[in-house]
Amino acid sequence: MTTHDDAQQKSVSEQAVTASSTAGGYPTPAWRKAYHQGSRPDLRVPFREVLLSNGATVPLYDTSGPYTDPAYEPDVRRGLPPLRDAWISQRGDVEDYHGRESRPEDDGLRHTSPRGGAGLANLDAVFPGRPRRPRRGRDGAAVTQLAYARRGIVTEEMEFAALREGMSPETVREELAAGRAVLPANVNHPESEPMLIGSKFLVKINANIGNSAVTSSIEEEVEKMSWASRWGADTVMDLSTGRNIHTTREWILRNSPVPIGTVPLYQALEKVDGRAEELSWDVYRDTVIEQCEQGVDYMTVHAGVLLRYVPMTARRKTGIVSRGGSIMAAWCLAHHQENFLYTHFDELCEILRAYDVTYSLGDGLRPGSIADANDEAQFAELQTLGELGRIARSHDVQVMIEGPGHVPMHKIKENMDLQKEICDEAPFYTLGPLTTDVAPGYDHITSGIGAAMIAWWGTAMLCYVTPKEHLGLPNRDDVKTGVITYKIAAHAADVAKGHPSAQAWDDALSDARFEFRWEDQFNLALDPETAREFHDETLPAEPAKTAHFCSMCGPKFCSMKISKTVMDMYGSGGSAGGEDGDDDTVVAGMRAKSEEFKAQGAKVYLPVVD
Amino acid sequence: MTTHDDAQQKSVSEQAVTASSTAGGYPTPAWRKAYHQGSRPDLRVPFREVLLSNGATVPLYDTSGPYTDPAYEPDVRRGLPPLRDAWISQRGDVEDYHGRESRPEDDGLRHTSPRGGAGLANLDAVFPGRPRRPRRGRDGAAVTQLAYARRGIVTEEMEFAALREGMSPETVREELAAGRAVLPANVNHPESEPMLIGSKFLVKINANIGNSAVTSSIEEEVEKMSWASRWGADTVMDLSTGRNIHTTREWILRNSPVPIGTVPLYQALEKVDGRAEELSWDVYRDTVIEQCEQGVDYMTVHAGVLLRYVPMTARRKTGIVSRGGSIMAAWCLAHHQENFLYTHFDELCEILRAYDVTYSLGDGLRPGSIADANDEAQFAELQTLGELGRIARSHDVQVMIEGPGHVPMHKIKENMDLQKEICDEAPFYTLGPLTTDVAPGYDHITSGIGAAMIAWWGTAMLCYVTPKEHLGLPNRDDVKTGVITYKIAAHAADVAKGHPSAQAWDDALSDARFEFRWEDQFNLALDPETAREFHDETLPAEPAKTAHFCSMCGPKFCSMKISKTVMDMYGSGGSAGGEDGDDDTVVAGMRAKSEEFKAQGAKVYLPVVD
Repeated sequence: MTTHDDAQQKSVSEQAVTASSTAGGYPTPAWRKAYHQGSRPDLRVPFREVLLSNGATVPLYDTSGPYTDPAYEPDVRRGLPPLRDAWISQRGDVEDYHGRESRPEDDGLRHTSPRGGAGLANLDAVFPGRPRRPRRGRDGAAVTQLAYARRGIVTEEMEFAALREGMSPETVREELAAGRAVLPANVNHPESEPMLIGSKFLVKINANIGNSAVTSSIEEEVEKMSWASRWGADTVMDLSTGRNIHTTREWILRNSPVPIGTVPLYQALEKVDGRAEELSWDVYRDTVIEQCEQGVDYMTVHAGVLLRYVPMTARRKTGIVSRGGSIMAAWCLAHHQENFLYTHFDELCEILRAYDVTYSLGDGLRPGSIADANDEAQFAELQTLGELGRIARSHDVQVMIEGPGHVPMHKIKENMDLQKEICDEAPFYTLGPLTTDVAPGYDHITSGIGAAMIAWWGTAMLCYVTPKEHLGLPNRDDVKTGVITYKIAAHAADVAKGHPSAQAWDDALSDARFEFRWEDQFNLALDPETAREFHDETLPAEPAKTAHFCSMCGPKFCSMKISKTVMDMYGSGGSAGGEDGDDDTVVAGMRAKSEEFKAQGAKVYLPVVD
Repeated sequence: MTTHDDAQQKSVSEQAVTASSTAGGYPTPAWRKAYHQGSRPDLRVPFREVLLSNGATVPLYDTSGPYTDPAYEPDVRRGLPPLRDAWISQRGDVEDYHGRESRPEDDGLRHTSPRGGAGLANLDAVFPGRPRRPRRGRDGAAVTQLAYARRGIVTEEMEFAALREGMSPETVREELAAGRAVLPANVNHPESEPMLIGSKFLVKINANIGNSAVTSSIEEEVEKMSWASRWGADTVMDLSTGRNIHTTREWILRNSPVPIGTVPLYQALEKVDGRAEELSWDVYRDTVIEQCEQGVDYMTVHAGVLLRYVPMTARRKTGIVSRGGSIMAAWCLAHHQENFLYTHFDELCEILRAYDVTYSLGDGLRPGSIADANDEAQFAELQTLGELGRIARSHDVQVMIEGPGHVPMHKIKENMDLQKEICDEAPFYTLGPLTTDVAPGYDHITSGIGAAMIAWWGTAMLCYVTPKEHLGLPNRDDVKTGVITYKIAAHAADVAKGHPSAQAWDDALSDARFEFRWEDQFNLALDPETAREFHDETLPAEPAKTAHFCSMCGPKFCSMKISKTVMDMYGSGGSAGGEDGDDDTVVAGMRAKSEEFKAQGAKVYLPVVD
């Protein structure tokens, strides 16, 4: 056993090196970590500054955490610095206490694993970071950002997130108080950098990671977490099943600069060895407390899968595809009782409010094929989610609502509109939606289409889909592809929604493109590595990066060069003639201009750089 | 010189082997070529049948041509069989004649190339296929599908295309006669399989290929063409610039089962050695006739770039990004005269009608950045394209209208609505649009989002964008990625538009997914190779493909298994209780059902396949 532990610690500590080598530093030297100073010395908001060749900088939202700060020495065995510790304790409403004792079954080790492998003798030893006692609201006090916002308090977390968004702290407080936004920040995850999920703010994306019974390891999951946030994931969900769930989660939380979400039901099911009918409120409650103490920031809870809704799925093409939904459906069938998450919902609220864990009310009956989209079962559950959201907020617990799934384009807007109406504009958190079922291997694209549309219409956070969806577990490259695809969908939506800061980024890149500032074009790209690599495939020579042409038209001819000539000739007032449609004036003007044009050589060439 | 010819012919004939090895046969043995017999023996419409494990077949639209027919022996030196020869000649309205003599400058060899390399002494020798004389309408007769449709004639081409779409030939004739659809089919490209571009039919996609001054070769382009149509490209545009334009096009046309489009202006510019101001109607006219005789099916003509519109681009962020648009703008500037394509438009119509070449009226002033979308210049040109479309149809020439470009999501629909109104519902043919500028390297995705949306709203054909857009020329893998991405966008739109045949495909795949028919799931995918490969990365073992679980949940638990239990228990009528909301009835029913459930072991396991 000890040997096993050592082996595991060793491999994880080796991982520290890998993780820091991947998470440490940005993919291009032109990206630079910058901080905007807040109202107190320890409130410094990170940005990613893109340094342009003309010396200007473009500040972009940054999710990568301390790993990309050259001044920071990453060590995944120590964990990240507890950024929010002082803010939390200074509010004076939390107490630390002797937490729940972790048990072998927390890692799924109650039974000898059918797949072999020894258990872990001492789970605490597995994460070697600083010793910590869990915190909670004193006497069950609501220590949620919602409670503070309602009391008119602007917390450090709110100020931090407001600076990130370029919004006023008061706006943030208002959106939180109204339940139109959430700020997931468990008091036991002080390492996280506060961020907002709400339709008035930048569209966020979540990356799912997690080992399963079939594959993957702790090392891989920690690495995927830092990798995903490095490329732009705003939150990460640990969907681990199978073994070492508790330990994997501990490593992820202690090293994560972004909020971490989970589905406690998965671990609870492991504790009863996969027998859904053996699940109980007690086992679930125990698991939730375990995860609250570790610092999970939001939890998917499938409390809307009601007994009477289950039969509505019988006529579907793909039935129930949500794991959580089907687990609760199985429990209901076995006990002919109402979903215990629904019947114990008030108790659950009392627990979550003491840690500030945000609800992500799961859509257990979401469609798994476009044929099942927007059906009776899906919308019946949505009604219940709206009801549960109101109950949660009455307990001062933050709430977001999960959405589909597989939905053809013409049925997407109905989802958004109904959710707003039924759920009082609580943040919508959707998976995709996938707009067709026919492209396994490309579901990041089938879903990126739906994601961009639903985000434009109001979804606050998009759960990414990787190319491996429906086929397997994402590897490192799949995670990056999923994240980049969803950053595209989210940013396209920010632009369409007219978010104040959104289009400036596009404009900066288009300026660089028009002026043939190739390096700036690469560095302003979501993925500079890929942009540079693709360019160099066709024109590898270093001079080509400063060449005033690209491989599409070649050196002989370039449309942008001609555009510049037009601009030189007409300046910014050029369009007047066109506007009043006075052709003679324009043509007369043209005649004069054409002389200039020929005088300067009538060049439509570009100098061939050699 | 001769040596050079031989060398080139040799390399091209070697290519024949490669091409047949790639184009020959589908990517999976479960795809089978099938033909639906039309009203005459030589009218056999190809389909791609997907053979399912239960013996059923799913027929899908097929663009791959004879290459995927095991009975056909490909030889790119001979070219494809002239499918439409008899149909064309039997109409008795064409004559063959001694065509234009090809000249060295057709291949850009008037001047010694600055980049070296000998010229081709005898161009005709370069394509060794059967000798052919060009055809044209006798005495300039209109031999266009539009002219026939207007006269109430249902041609073999119309019947063929109707069978492909699952529509009645009369519907096809009506759409063509109304100018709401086009059937690009030059009488000198009898190798092409008739297809339709119109909003009432399946959304089509175009793949651009073409060598440039900087890179690529004839062999590569012929290969890209067959490769693109194999994966689903409905048409291919040859955008070659630089040298061997004529010869490259000849090889492509003789081997292409899909309509070929070009931008004659590119070759005309080569003939005047890249000096836009030296362009003239005569050079352009000569080039158009050259290409009409070769068999080009549709031509992009930038006749809407008017003198008075040029200044409107001066205030843009990225000016004029269309090559054709900027060439004509440069010509206007140099000559202070109106665009010669506009002033000679009637003459051009007379030429195209004699070969049935379809206009693709180019949007030379399309936006090259989201900042420039929907501006004065773009919409001014659209007005002119509408006017030119009416003139073309008055000459019985088929017309489609090209559209942008870079357009943020909230401005896409305005493009579609204006185009319908201004252009009398002529087919819209759009490039993307790209919904953000910030992701070079991923513009197949930034544009796939906009493409799906605008196609849903009515665009008839989508011009693909590859990952190399803005960065370099697409290689073979990029072409495949671009085609698959755009097939996704087109199909998602077909589903959203409610095309009769569209959703059946999704349903077949979802059924296979729900029933764990993995092989069927792969074979029904747009790209079976990638789907299978991704699955095998996680679960390589052969048994896994028949396993009743996937790597996401693992063998212990599976949501779909529970759904099946629900279906077994409630059958298709299961939802009744849920419908009338009579909870007691339902719960009572549940009680009984739950006994069954426990009686059968309350299994939420799945048998682990070993």
